[in-house]
Amino acid sequence: MLIRSFIPAHITAFFVPRVHKDPLKSGSLGAGVNLDKGTNVFASVETGTLERHIHVAFNGEPVKKEEAVISYSVAEELIPADFIGEVEIWQYFDFPNGYGFGNSGGGALGTALALGHAFGGTWLKAAGIAHKHEVLKGGGLGDVVAQLAGGIEVRVKAGGPGIGVVDNLFFEDYRVLLVPLGRLSTREVLDGDVVGVITAEGEKALDALLRDPRPERMMLLARTFAERTGLLGGELLELARELDRILKLPSSMIMLGRGLFALVREDEVENSVSLLSDLGLPYDVTGIHVGKPTVGRWVG
Amino acid sequence: MLIRSFIPAHITAFFVPRVHKDPLKSGSLGAGVNLDKGTNVFASVETGTLERHIHVAFNGEPVKKEEAVISYSVAEELIPADFIGEVEIWQYFDFPNGYGFGNSGGGALGTALALGHAFGGTWLKAAGIAHKHEVLKGGGLGDVVAQLAGGIEVRVKAGGPGIGVVDNLFFEDYRVLLVPLGRLSTREVLDGDVVGVITAEGEKALDALLRDPRPERMMLLARTFAERTGLLGGELLELARELDRILKLPSSMIMLGRGLFALVREDEVENSVSLLSDLGLPYDVTGIHVGKPTVGRWVG
Repeated sequence: MLIRSFIPAHITAFFVPRVHKDPLKSGSLGAGVNLDKGTNVFASVETGTLERHIHVAFNGEPVKKEEAVISYSVAEELIPADFIGEVEIWQYFDFPNGYGFGNSGGGALGTALALGHAFGGTWLKAAGIAHKHEVLKGGGLGDVVAQLAGGIEVRVKAGGPGIGVVDNLFFEDYRVLLVPLGRLSTREVLDGDVVGVITAEGEKALDALLRDPRPERMMLLARTFAERTGLLGGELLELARELDRILKLPSSMIMLGRGLFALVREDEVENSVSLLSDLGLPYDVTGIHVGKPTVGRWVG
Repeated sequence: MLIRSFIPAHITAFFVPRVHKDPLKSGSLGAGVNLDKGTNVFASVETGTLERHIHVAFNGEPVKKEEAVISYSVAEELIPADFIGEVEIWQYFDFPNGYGFGNSGGGALGTALALGHAFGGTWLKAAGIAHKHEVLKGGGLGDVVAQLAGGIEVRVKAGGPGIGVVDNLFFEDYRVLLVPLGRLSTREVLDGDVVGVITAEGEKALDALLRDPRPERMMLLARTFAERTGLLGGELLELARELDRILKLPSSMIMLGRGLFALVREDEVENSVSLLSDLGLPYDVTGIHVGKPTVGRWVG
């Protein structure tokens, strides 16, 4: 049996970490965008072997347990203890790991939904297990609930699936311009001194967004958040200003990766793409994934 | 400007009413199915008139305020007090009113999302207003949150959007067979003596479903609930038994309408349709709507 799930890539615009001793009550407040590219997970379940085997592969390459701790933990918890057979979990990422596209959450949630579909349970049970291991192993705090919500999301109450509350903004016809330049460790940022400023600025941004809940406002608040926290600076800030010159809405920083994103109209794509090409920088343009992730049996 | 929203029809399989003095905390526990037919709402917003006008139409026919109290209340709350202009809300229903397909919730939520998109706000704010007027005017307790969730849903915590928690079951390849025979007043049933039995049987069904959360189990529990509460009896029960003879899963009663529904595989459709034709009964076969309702600008 082969099950496929698709989980949108998720970019955080601004955030407030909320850590609790119960991982299901840990999470984040904030806002972000789900993309129509992301993580595809194919879970193959075969019985008839004499032992229980679980294998995880990233982009076609098998990975060891210590390199995929979250996915292995999710799988161990969702596959019944008495199951004998072979489970292969193939995760394919449209964006590189560590660049701030929620790959960790995508792999965890995609694995959980595919195995929940195969072995039983519910969406919230599967997603709760994905969220828990994301939190416990430092993968992320808010990606799983944001990816479950889809669209342009606002985390208004922190927590895992069934506890946190995620709202959505109305929007029309936006595409997402991406400039993915490199990695940034979520854990290093969250372990650093900047957390106090992030919390204060994130709370301010959320309050302001809820008073005027529009995507255009979100981008302005995201940019302010990125600059005031000092996360966006130097060459990356210069590039953001370069983009601002040709875009209607401010670009902002992908939280947390070394990269920028912007909401653009179709007629802004050509100009921005040619600017980035001229600068010799990598870029991508995607749509916004509206609604929930998908999961179902796959006939390839 | 013309906005279109689609809200799936929602059939309740079993339920437990939970009434609270705060309408946002009122709701229901239970389970049900969202269909790929339902309610389409087209909201037209025009400025340039001298007065403020709001019009609602059902299936192309304008209706008076007293015949569409919920929709008018939702519209009045979502359209800013200082708006001068003409708002027309055209609601089209794929199923008849009062038959248990969640038309009232569909009209309320479809109106709320379309006007939220046009005038501002968020999904939860709009959906909360739809839920509130549904509860206050006796339209329904659980349809709005169920319709927001899509798929085969399980209401595990009662309440409106952002308060209630709705889970989803995993499923594959089911179609929904419908036998819509007539109306049943939600309010009359909920005001009657049967509420105590409904609560007790509904809680039992929910507990059992959460221990074994599969659609097949849901149908068995729905049928037990329908018979034990006495809501399903007489000719309708005879018809359900007739259908059981040719279907793999038990059929059950649409809560609350005079009608039956069943989850069927593609290869069961022909037989059941010819049985119902032979009996001279109305029927329909639909898919399951997975994920959230849709809303966006409409270019017809």
